[in-house]
Amino acid sequence: MRIDIISLFPEFIEAFYQHSIIGRARAQGLLELDVTNPRSFVYDRHRMVDDTIYGGGCGMLMKAGPLFAAVESVRRDVPRRRVILMGPAGSTFNQAKARELAAYDQLILLCGHYEGVDYRVEQYLADETISIGDFVVTGGEMPAMIITDAVARMIPGVLGSAGSASDDSFYHSLLEYPQYTKPAVFRGHAVPEVLRNGNHAKIAAWRREQSLRRTVAKRPDLLQGCSLSDTDRMILERIQKETEL
Amino acid sequence: MRIDIISLFPEFIEAFYQHSIIGRARAQGLLELDVTNPRSFVYDRHRMVDDTIYGGGCGMLMKAGPLFAAVESVRRDVPRRRVILMGPAGSTFNQAKARELAAYDQLILLCGHYEGVDYRVEQYLADETISIGDFVVTGGEMPAMIITDAVARMIPGVLGSAGSASDDSFYHSLLEYPQYTKPAVFRGHAVPEVLRNGNHAKIAAWRREQSLRRTVAKRPDLLQGCSLSDTDRMILERIQKETEL
Repeated sequence: MRIDIISLFPEFIEAFYQHSIIGRARAQGLLELDVTNPRSFVYDRHRMVDDTIYGGGCGMLMKAGPLFAAVESVRRDVPRRRVILMGPAGSTFNQAKARELAAYDQLILLCGHYEGVDYRVEQYLADETISIGDFVVTGGEMPAMIITDAVARMIPGVLGSAGSASDDSFYHSLLEYPQYTKPAVFRGHAVPEVLRNGNHAKIAAWRREQSLRRTVAKRPDLLQGCSLSDTDRMILERIQKETEL
Repeated sequence: MRIDIISLFPEFIEAFYQHSIIGRARAQGLLELDVTNPRSFVYDRHRMVDDTIYGGGCGMLMKAGPLFAAVESVRRDVPRRRVILMGPAGSTFNQAKARELAAYDQLILLCGHYEGVDYRVEQYLADETISIGDFVVTGGEMPAMIITDAVARMIPGVLGSAGSASDDSFYHSLLEYPQYTKPAVFRGHAVPEVLRNGNHAKIAAWRREQSLRRTVAKRPDLLQGCSLSDTDRMILERIQKETEL
């Protein structure tokens, strides 16, 4: 798999490419990563990548030309390729989307900046627009990093231990249970006894119940899309009775 | 305002601190930023910040001790201070949350890594846990950057043009209208005529209608929390009639 990020801030993207599991995946050849600066495709004297907004408005907008040229320069002849604009008016990124994107051979992630990007990029260059949440950030760089990281974790071999990806929160649509490491008592706060006595069945049951409790308390919306066992339903009924008391 | 990020990857955070408007805000003294490595507070021979998980499980968990020590070392004596853990089991970050956080004197953002963080950090050190979306990323670094950027944009003077922040998508809970810059015709695709004829009232009406159309098409959920004028309601009725045809 190959991911190209198109960004006016290649140094920032390079710092990310060297960071953590992404750096390791790249070093091991599990993931090809590159960053391309649209400014390299501007040939006028001032090398302007942005200009004023038609119809008026504060700030500047990124021009379509340099972005089209940048995408055309990195586009590979592969069966499954997707050009994605990072933008607030897109569909919201989530774990299901990460799984979907992990099946492509090449992803090209376009980072907007300034007040935004000429709309013709969204209409005629991007296959889709993705937002990572209902908040405003300065550029598409951090959203593109988030998508790269979430997708890279699904490539076989990228995570050290094979089981790690599927246990994470959201993979099964429940929040993760509380986890503890040494020391057993920290500043007077002890690790729950059940986790220290080594009974695997009890530990598994405790963890499932904690996941259900946290999800009910903090993100009840996640329970909708979740496959629940009969035991899960019994636990949920018990939690509901407790809250009614 | 001061933001401290607690992270095992200070070089990556430093690259972000130099990036774009954050770098400028810092240079102009509008925002104090620092990064602290919890590894600096581990004094044993191997300087381990992580350990195995009680009750079993893949991977490693960040220990509570170094994170408590790091927070205690950066904590300032200011009236409004908030310690926030970046974690999947938190409430979801959005623009309203960014506004809320912008009112603090000091934010301390804790980045987890590996399989997560000892639960006692969430229970006894953090004032709250924030998730930036329903997806899994390797560490809290990118989420912390997102929060820093979204909050920094609200500090007076950080954005070049004073009007910019309030026009963005989500500030008024509608998606942004399409925007165009030069050239007027790019690869055969022209900028809409209304934006080029300079009638401000017509441009404003076109933009509002486009915002409503995009929001209806892509994020109808946003209309719930939105204050709409009578004209907006008429436009929405018209859009609905069109889709019924």
